[in-house]
Amino acid sequence: MKLLIPGPVELDSEVLLAMAKPVMGHRTPDFEEILAECWRLLKYVYQTRNDVAIITGSGTSAMEAAVASVIKEGDEVVSITGGKFGERLGEIAAAFGAKVRKVEVEWGRTFAIEEVEKAIAESNATAITLTHNETSTGVVHDARAVGRLAREYDLLFIADCITSVGGDEVKTDEWGIDLCITGSQKCLAAPPGLGFVAVSERAWEAIESNAEKRAYYLDLAKYRKSLAKRTTPFTPSVTLIYGLHAALKKIEEETLEARIRRHHTLAEATRKAAEAMNLELFAERRCASNTVTAIKIPPGLSDDDVRGALKREHGILVAGGQAQLKGRIFRIGHMGNVRFGDLAQVLSALELVLQKAGHELEPGAGVAAAEEVFSREG
Amino acid sequence: MKLLIPGPVELDSEVLLAMAKPVMGHRTPDFEEILAECWRLLKYVYQTRNDVAIITGSGTSAMEAAVASVIKEGDEVVSITGGKFGERLGEIAAAFGAKVRKVEVEWGRTFAIEEVEKAIAESNATAITLTHNETSTGVVHDARAVGRLAREYDLLFIADCITSVGGDEVKTDEWGIDLCITGSQKCLAAPPGLGFVAVSERAWEAIESNAEKRAYYLDLAKYRKSLAKRTTPFTPSVTLIYGLHAALKKIEEETLEARIRRHHTLAEATRKAAEAMNLELFAERRCASNTVTAIKIPPGLSDDDVRGALKREHGILVAGGQAQLKGRIFRIGHMGNVRFGDLAQVLSALELVLQKAGHELEPGAGVAAAEEVFSREG
Repeated sequence: MKLLIPGPVELDSEVLLAMAKPVMGHRTPDFEEILAECWRLLKYVYQTRNDVAIITGSGTSAMEAAVASVIKEGDEVVSITGGKFGERLGEIAAAFGAKVRKVEVEWGRTFAIEEVEKAIAESNATAITLTHNETSTGVVHDARAVGRLAREYDLLFIADCITSVGGDEVKTDEWGIDLCITGSQKCLAAPPGLGFVAVSERAWEAIESNAEKRAYYLDLAKYRKSLAKRTTPFTPSVTLIYGLHAALKKIEEETLEARIRRHHTLAEATRKAAEAMNLELFAERRCASNTVTAIKIPPGLSDDDVRGALKREHGILVAGGQAQLKGRIFRIGHMGNVRFGDLAQVLSALELVLQKAGHELEPGAGVAAAEEVFSREG
Repeated sequence: MKLLIPGPVELDSEVLLAMAKPVMGHRTPDFEEILAECWRLLKYVYQTRNDVAIITGSGTSAMEAAVASVIKEGDEVVSITGGKFGERLGEIAAAFGAKVRKVEVEWGRTFAIEEVEKAIAESNATAITLTHNETSTGVVHDARAVGRLAREYDLLFIADCITSVGGDEVKTDEWGIDLCITGSQKCLAAPPGLGFVAVSERAWEAIESNAEKRAYYLDLAKYRKSLAKRTTPFTPSVTLIYGLHAALKKIEEETLEARIRRHHTLAEATRKAAEAMNLELFAERRCASNTVTAIKIPPGLSDDDVRGALKREHGILVAGGQAQLKGRIFRIGHMGNVRFGDLAQVLSALELVLQKAGHELEPGAGVAAAEEVFSREG
């Protein structure tokens, strides 16, 4: 099955085979060397000088670590929503006792910065949360603008960059992201099961002085203590670290700059192709994601006509809609190792299944539109 | 490097290679089939009919999930300590706001059940915690006896069985363990990075009715909801699940009964060998662990004379002492895939390094003592 879902993504065979290496003791100099390399390369993809905590767990575990480490009962938190994952960050803050003030954004659109500022000004918030690239809707929000407000109002800026780091521009330090969260199985093209948080100096201060923390495994203070000793606080998943290391080396080889450009080209090619196939994009153009594209299922067609047929007839897995978007959209993940050839393959298959289901389109038009983008930008 | 540490353990090549298989979509019937097989086999090793939550994270994440899901601010918890991991369970309960009443046990010994009962009777505890096999001291405690008290006093019984499930007898249902925790990288001989909690019906009730839960990723209620749909609440580590599946199939092949017998034989052989080498065991004999043996470093010798030399000269990694036992003991992990041949190898190397360091022993006596146990029981 060919994966074009927004994670987990397909892995390079070097990465897969790295995980078949014998397990090392996790408190040995040999393993610490691999960890040190991972930290160096994570800072590179994060564009940060901050320390990066490596957590064994899925992306959500890193979200919980970020929130639980700085938030305490009764704190106010401004939470920008607009999709399943933006909402999740707010839910996690609420689960840890925060009073959450939501800035609700229509799904598929982005926020007006004035509304964010209004919410901050009207609250006593100590932190603000944002999901930078909202995988559920295919929207990328302006994290830089939120970072500016966070500095102005002296808030901790917690950003879920799970589907942007390593695929789209994330300037952790320049944008002032205090707790920058990502996961292994998305744009980094590493195996699922590792979460990361890049932590700024002011966030470390908040963490260290948080006496009422409700966390242990997910207490970032423990990760900082271990970082100083070049290790992790709990037994890490040794084989996943092997895989991560191999994946990060691939990114260094490609260079982050070229990788981000590749993702941008794939996204633009997907959008142009969709339009050329008479399909409607779900997200507004000005905030369309560069790592995942959400496309409306045409009127009269079902999820099975599109996704089911792609899977059955072409062995291609794309994602469906989540929550209220179930059955209304499908999502093509073009992140990680996806190359133009992979995209051409899914676009061509898509033309075939759409035609078969009675959707009107000019055969080849989608692929041609993508080719045009590729030959101009790729 | 040959690993004889108490986890992570060496993996079978079938398990290693399973992790090199291409990543599947985690919401597909093919992957759900593998998950279902894992659940079936986990119930087998746990000797339970309870549901088992599979958490991407290290063993400590499963400890935190168990505690955070049932404990709320102000709850009283009786916590039996006596080693690093027993203490950790108490620390986690305290981190989540519990009033922890410790039953302190001297390291290397086990509890007097009367003292446990006294602590329960004098408190308003709603839960009791125990680390069944205390890896830091090489002690196995009587979990069955604690289970009986937990039933009598209507307490939730939270047991860390991280280094016993799959290697020593753990009768989850018969002993009345409500939240039975284990990890992948110990006796199960699966890759590190997965934690498990087998949850009883009464524990599910406590979880569902816990309105003040401070957890999201580690909220077991989410795992129950997903279990009903044969899936996991968050993206699982697909490659680790492949490895787990392969490892559990190996256990089924060997049978749990034979596996536990093998661990018992290895433990007895290690103890007899140590004594024959004029070494002193750290744990009392009547409560000596069947998966890890703690041995005192002989007077006049250093940790480096023993562990350092084993590593440098023989490529064998055994564990050192933790916390106050640093430099005072070393620990041989004989769990997971360790066979008699592996043990013979480490014992022989141990004889060599001890002699070299000036420790008096009769060459071959340790190995001979182990052979005797093996030929009688193996």
